Amino acid sequence: MLREEVFTKGELAKKAAYKLANLDTEAKDRALLAMAGALVARQGEIIAANSEDLKRGEEKGLSKAMLDRLMLNEKRIGDMAEGLRQVTALPDPVGEVLSMWNRPNGLQMGQIRVPLGVVGIIYEARPNVTVDAAALCLKSGNAVILRGGSEAINSNKTITRIIAEAAEEQGVPQGAIQLIENTDREAVTMLLRLNQYLDVIIPRGGAGLIKHVVENASVPVIETGVGNCHVYVDKEAELNMAAEIVINAKCQRPAVCNAMETLLVHRDSAAELLPGLAAKLQERGVEIRGCAETRKLVPGAKEATDQDYATEFLDLILAVRVVPDIDTALEHIQTFGSKHSEAIITNNYFTSRRFLQEVDAAAVYVNASTRFTDGFEFGFGAEIGISTQKLHARGPMGLKELTTIKYIVYGEGQIRG
Amino acid sequence: MLREEVFTKGELAKKAAYKLANLDTEAKDRALLAMAGALVARQGEIIAANSEDLKRGEEKGLSKAMLDRLMLNEKRIGDMAEGLRQVTALPDPVGEVLSMWNRPNGLQMGQIRVPLGVVGIIYEARPNVTVDAAALCLKSGNAVILRGGSEAINSNKTITRIIAEAAEEQGVPQGAIQLIENTDREAVTMLLRLNQYLDVIIPRGGAGLIKHVVENASVPVIETGVGNCHVYVDKEAELNMAAEIVINAKCQRPAVCNAMETLLVHRDSAAELLPGLAAKLQERGVEIRGCAETRKLVPGAKEATDQDYATEFLDLILAVRVVPDIDTALEHIQTFGSKHSEAIITNNYFTSRRFLQEVDAAAVYVNASTRFTDGFEFGFGAEIGISTQKLHARGPMGLKELTTIKYIVYGEGQIRG
Repeated sequence: MLREEVFTKGELAKKAAYKLANLDTEAKDRALLAMAGALVARQGEIIAANSEDLKRGEEKGLSKAMLDRLMLNEKRIGDMAEGLRQVTALPDPVGEVLSMWNRPNGLQMGQIRVPLGVVGIIYEARPNVTVDAAALCLKSGNAVILRGGSEAINSNKTITRIIAEAAEEQGVPQGAIQLIENTDREAVTMLLRLNQYLDVIIPRGGAGLIKHVVENASVPVIETGVGNCHVYVDKEAELNMAAEIVINAKCQRPAVCNAMETLLVHRDSAAELLPGLAAKLQERGVEIRGCAETRKLVPGAKEATDQDYATEFLDLILAVRVVPDIDTALEHIQTFGSKHSEAIITNNYFTSRRFLQEVDAAAVYVNASTRFTDGFEFGFGAEIGISTQKLHARGPMGLKELTTIKYIVYGEGQIRG
Repeated sequence: MLREEVFTKGELAKKAAYKLANLDTEAKDRALLAMAGALVARQGEIIAANSEDLKRGEEKGLSKAMLDRLMLNEKRIGDMAEGLRQVTALPDPVGEVLSMWNRPNGLQMGQIRVPLGVVGIIYEARPNVTVDAAALCLKSGNAVILRGGSEAINSNKTITRIIAEAAEEQGVPQGAIQLIENTDREAVTMLLRLNQYLDVIIPRGGAGLIKHVVENASVPVIETGVGNCHVYVDKEAELNMAAEIVINAKCQRPAVCNAMETLLVHRDSAAELLPGLAAKLQERGVEIRGCAETRKLVPGAKEATDQDYATEFLDLILAVRVVPDIDTALEHIQTFGSKHSEAIITNNYFTSRRFLQEVDAAAVYVNASTRFTDGFEFGFGAEIGISTQKLHARGPMGLKELTTIKYIVYGEGQIRG
């Protein structure tokens, strides 16, 4: 029965994808607006389904934070609807001709942007991902197969039914937006091997989920999420600015992937910067784990181990290391970083150039907070996730990252000699 | 010992990749020229190693075709050297700024092209792939780990040693070009899971190899190669042109992935086109397997099954189907095609537009042979393979397809609110 659900939905999604690739922007936007309207009009159904999830969650002893992430109310449903409306304002990436050129034999060749086809999204608790992912896939002409966490299954089923129905009424093909309703872990395993129907899988969630997907998928994967990010304060730096950026990168939202996890400070800046900055961080509840030099300058700092340097805390914990030079900072980032977001605070032109050139990460910053690595902050207007791999997409992924290209070739009878 | 070889080389490659990413074009081109020179200067060593491979191949009963592919002589080594020199003439893709924009908060953001890092190439018999792949990876700033077929192991070891030494003498870091010398199949399995060191694996070879890689890799893969390509001759078409294109697409080099495997003919063109065209194909040794209508028009044609329509013959065999309309042709391609290269022969503007729009393939042709799907024919100057997946690269892959991007962000103290 599980197998039947996964394969039936896969086949239907593939058929839908062929039609979706040829749907014009107007039709897609009309569907997005109808989906937004339906979410609001039928919010009673959503809230009823959601309260079942919440009740079961409480019985299962989910944490308050988890229950809060799961919870939907009028305000949150309104926000989801607003998100759908905002996607209509984004440019449709499909059909863009990226380049066109002529060959000596007279062939005219072009590279045109087309949808990927069928996108699988595997995610965890938050039911708003259901709406976000469906909207971005639809706008980019892709069919989507959603697989949310079991905690939100009733909410996800109701939301998917409502938005899929609204979309179909506007001419979106059946199968364009589907949810795998079976909550067995086996369903994920099956999706990961569904090469005949899926063109890509994007996992969104914790490190465990992402590792499981990467290790077991034969369908191409876009890995998202893990961020062990650094800020390096150079010997020549505006130390007030450095302190503000460090506090922002650590404290503004510590549980997200673009938050800073380790602060590297040049020895020449350490004595002036660290005592005051550490006190401000500690006031905000940050636990400091430092190297020997750091601990001399920061009362109350614990010892930092290599394990700490390798950890994405996602919490109010900061590892701090004093380094003798930029080489050591670069080496530290190369050893422990996860190639997500890295920042340098410096006044020196050459040092800034070197950092930008040598750091291997999705986003490299000079004199700004790592917290900006985000589709909205980058101006993409949307985000399906942040890729931490190098293939296909790197960094924040917007609508363009949900497309591929095809070559179109105009001839007049050319054959190969 | 196998494990040690794979992990030691992986680690060395990763270290080399950091240095390679910062090597300038001049240094890379100097190395390529030195590699070319060394191949010619030391061709005696290569030919000696190659004759060992040939001797073992004969003992193992390899086919004449296989032995020919394996064989190296002065001419072929000269061609490999010339290939290296040609790569110096290609533009270096690394460092290209693809776009740069400002955000309302004053952040300036740019997207810059950078190497992928470490590329794994798993291939079969032909030792020239060793040189080609090493050259393209070096020029695009990537370290490469090569894993060729066991039949060519002596040739590959000698070639790799010669070119790696020549490159290192020109300042290319040690570990930039490495070959896995252990010929156990287990070595491939290990490479496929070497996520900590490899950024991508590109398999080059037969369908079996590619399937094995796709199904077992946790490292991101770029799938290459399988081409079940079609030519569709419309009801409005220059039939002489159609015949020339069909003969070219089938016969010019039947064993390659961009050769045509099935001919689709509109019913209105069939009676005029098929008898004469089939005779010409049969003269060239092509076996025709046709639908019922085809068999009425083509003496000697065998019956075509769905299995035939699904097969990449890579041989002088052609499946032929007469269709009542373009819809049936599009459906046939959607059902049986491998999304590689598809062509329509038509005089009709609207029909050509529809075919270009609706066919989902890496390359879609109007009035030209499918045989043009090739990095050189597309004007890329080189080719590391032809991607048949949608993620990262689609169609012929040149130097750009061996790169990824990173975002660089210039700030003046911006923090996120």
